[in-house]
Amino acid sequence: MIQRVVLIGSGNVATSLAHALARQGTLAQIYSRQMAHASQLAQAVGCDCVTDDLQALLPDADAYVVSVRDDVIAQVIAQVPDNGALWVHTSGSKPIDLFAGQRQCYGVLYPMQSFSRQLPTPLDEVHIFVEGNQAISLAAVRQLASQLSHHVVEASSDQRRRLHVAAVFACNFANHLWTLADETLREAELPFEAMLPLIRTTVAKLTHLSPAQSQTGPAMRHDMQVIDSHLAMLDGDKRDIYALLTRSILERNPLND
Amino acid sequence: MIQRVVLIGSGNVATSLAHALARQGTLAQIYSRQMAHASQLAQAVGCDCVTDDLQALLPDADAYVVSVRDDVIAQVIAQVPDNGALWVHTSGSKPIDLFAGQRQCYGVLYPMQSFSRQLPTPLDEVHIFVEGNQAISLAAVRQLASQLSHHVVEASSDQRRRLHVAAVFACNFANHLWTLADETLREAELPFEAMLPLIRTTVAKLTHLSPAQSQTGPAMRHDMQVIDSHLAMLDGDKRDIYALLTRSILERNPLND
Repeated sequence: MIQRVVLIGSGNVATSLAHALARQGTLAQIYSRQMAHASQLAQAVGCDCVTDDLQALLPDADAYVVSVRDDVIAQVIAQVPDNGALWVHTSGSKPIDLFAGQRQCYGVLYPMQSFSRQLPTPLDEVHIFVEGNQAISLAAVRQLASQLSHHVVEASSDQRRRLHVAAVFACNFANHLWTLADETLREAELPFEAMLPLIRTTVAKLTHLSPAQSQTGPAMRHDMQVIDSHLAMLDGDKRDIYALLTRSILERNPLND
Repeated sequence: MIQRVVLIGSGNVATSLAHALARQGTLAQIYSRQMAHASQLAQAVGCDCVTDDLQALLPDADAYVVSVRDDVIAQVIAQVPDNGALWVHTSGSKPIDLFAGQRQCYGVLYPMQSFSRQLPTPLDEVHIFVEGNQAISLAAVRQLASQLSHHVVEASSDQRRRLHVAAVFACNFANHLWTLADETLREAELPFEAMLPLIRTTVAKLTHLSPAQSQTGPAMRHDMQVIDSHLAMLDGDKRDIYALLTRSILERNPLND
């Protein structure tokens, strides 16, 4: 069991981490560049040790979690000397190498979720992807992650980059398609809410089937009559996107003779 | 209150309709071309009047719901003389005009949901889109629909076609993006299940925000460094789709100066 964790950061990811660590009694200290942010988060989770000074980090914690903006992680690491403890960052797109030459025992602990400071997310069901610079570090990161979530998966820095691409498709782009549906409905003076039961059903199917297995719609059944009538109704990039995604579905699902 | 409804059909949509009508005690008869299908559905919902003969439909019901495959609706209508009752079909893409010249009082009752025969869906929360050939028919269709669901919305045949396009974007295409995410993860030997919490969070946001308001990701924040690194990792149609959807998001969300 990792007993004492120092959390460096007070942003979207850090906030959910602070709540989870505090609940299990392992949150020893919160650092934020801005004392007000550190204090506010500490108060919300019931932690009595805060600082805005990297030189005042507790020297003897078991683990240090660097959960700050991607472009300042390296800077934070450089300002604190190695103390032999486990050091991890929580970034999806930054490699483990940020710690190379600066720490002995280090890794990455990346919780795959869309976090917001305003609404802390319980981590129990979030997939956490872990990486370590050597077997002993990996074991330590894995231990820390498994204290937070039931779903701990090892992933290299390259796998983590691909996870991020997959998440862009699965979430950012899917959400944009809902924007395009919303635009289509507005043009017809219909409410987007009409789509919600349908979207929820589509997502619910993923619990039992792979997305490829649960694909439906005109492209899936090669219904060219409906596809052509839809293309005729669309213009601008909605037309291009409809055509490209339809072709992508058709190609992956040839009709059986 | 519409008291006695004859249901013509025993497929995906008809099955959920049969359950909903039977629960409120308004299901008077089930027709299917195949007696076995009619009997099976009737037994499942507790209805004691079935037929496989269009000439044996009860002559004196209040409403007749034609819930058969799009390409046989017209055929069914043509085989039964008008009896002055309300007649509706349940198709998303077929116009109301299928009844023109064949009935006096007619309309469309289109429940917007992905139905499956195996698992009847409660209709209470499903948006039902209604159309009538005249005020009195519309009132009757609206009455019938409101006995089934809290969400009844009037929609013309043209609006219904646009609804269908919107549903293709919102569900069929979104699901295909999940297939592309799955492919990306497989290449990295990672499980698709890792995406599910993220997808669920993205959908949950739609309850409070429009999809445009809740858009996030590299394209939304114009992070060209991440976008370029993602494009460099992709090939085939995944690369084209990434580029097109990214452009579509960038164009709709210009950076403020």
